Amino acid sequence: MSANVPTDIVFSFTGLAERGGVTGPHIDGWGITFYEGKGSRTFKDARPSSESHIAKLIKSYPIKSEVVVSHIRQANRGCVSLENTHPFTRELWGQYWTYAHNGQLSGYEAKFVPTRFNAVGDTDSEMAFCWIMDKVVAQFGDKAPDDMLAVYRFIATLADEIRALGVFNMILSDGEHLMSYCSNNLCYITRCAPFGKAKLIDTDVVIDFDTETTPNDVVTVIATRPLTKNEQWNVLAPGEWKLFKKGELLIG
Amino acid sequence: MSANVPTDIVFSFTGLAERGGVTGPHIDGWGITFYEGKGSRTFKDARPSSESHIAKLIKSYPIKSEVVVSHIRQANRGCVSLENTHPFTRELWGQYWTYAHNGQLSGYEAKFVPTRFNAVGDTDSEMAFCWIMDKVVAQFGDKAPDDMLAVYRFIATLADEIRALGVFNMILSDGEHLMSYCSNNLCYITRCAPFGKAKLIDTDVVIDFDTETTPNDVVTVIATRPLTKNEQWNVLAPGEWKLFKKGELLIG
Repeated sequence: MSANVPTDIVFSFTGLAERGGVTGPHIDGWGITFYEGKGSRTFKDARPSSESHIAKLIKSYPIKSEVVVSHIRQANRGCVSLENTHPFTRELWGQYWTYAHNGQLSGYEAKFVPTRFNAVGDTDSEMAFCWIMDKVVAQFGDKAPDDMLAVYRFIATLADEIRALGVFNMILSDGEHLMSYCSNNLCYITRCAPFGKAKLIDTDVVIDFDTETTPNDVVTVIATRPLTKNEQWNVLAPGEWKLFKKGELLIG
Repeated sequence: MSANVPTDIVFSFTGLAERGGVTGPHIDGWGITFYEGKGSRTFKDARPSSESHIAKLIKSYPIKSEVVVSHIRQANRGCVSLENTHPFTRELWGQYWTYAHNGQLSGYEAKFVPTRFNAVGDTDSEMAFCWIMDKVVAQFGDKAPDDMLAVYRFIATLADEIRALGVFNMILSDGEHLMSYCSNNLCYITRCAPFGKAKLIDTDVVIDFDTETTPNDVVTVIATRPLTKNEQWNVLAPGEWKLFKKGELLIG
């Protein structure tokens, strides 16, 4: 999620969490990162989101945030464990960078040789993230460049390379920008006035955004598959990527 | 906390959390990091621990961990915000390093000039942490040395330097080792068989560890001030530091 005002994600997360054991097979852990200003906090659990005690808290306790990254995992590379649970976070240039990956890669070991950023777990996902971060430092150095869009354009070329190794649907944020890169499954919706009602696909919940928002709110939600059944989601093509800031599309 | 078996911290955290608004003035946020294997998860909140919804979860939901780092904050440098809330975490050598600081420093700006690791917030604490991490990389390079004890001995010399700038009580962990460095307030207790009862100072809770443990358990808890009133805590002297692993004292 990317929004221009601190917004809670309770509605969307309630739908997503069902896919971790009820309406979907992603039972191998889940996580969610909330940015609040420059700070961030990540809740994660190696248990299925549909039955996690901590997920229950997230579904019932609205945390208002301008950028949220969440992931539910179906393990392929790497065992079910906390260190293999997305999202992953690293600090670079005085910002926390948060990343989640959907998909599976092959033949990546020779490519993802770490220099500065090392994977803690043993997933292809985290290794790809660390490789991206290493490449960004190699390209731009130890200080953030003035043109952050150039950084994301560069990351898109890295994502193209990774996509050649398999399926690489990715979400990446520095807390200000939110990048989504599509390999085969990614879609988004931008909600703004006039707001209407939305109905989750995965559980019987309806929200009337008109009563939850102000007329100036702009909120974009990105997901591998649409979360609501009565709204039109924009589907990304393979290799397509989008960059959002404060809910608005910056590149894409 | 450092333990040789996954142990929950509910009892100790229940006492500590009271100091964030009820029995103590540390109302400017709190956080807690649990290591589970190589993975870690941090719960944090800029609200007082005594009234935090998330702290309530931690007090009621036992998470079993071999290393826990927790902090309640009384802000001096840096505003009350999520990015200024301890503990802070960085990845180095494929391990998450987690750090918390109690105290206040002066005249540190010229010293804590970042190279690789940058503070996200604006506390003296996080800047000191990043400086330590930078110095460790400068000394030992991009791969973990075989002798991790040498790393902690080196960090102790850095902590001595920082202590010259003010009050620097510190807890630092790589998920395996737990280092505590005392400037003026730090004490610890190592619990092992035969276990007895313990009574919190800050709230009316008693635990009988004999019913919660097995005879082989070794659990060390470190705090700025003792958490229990019927046990003997070991008080560290200014400049003294200890290194624990699996609950046992390794150095100190």
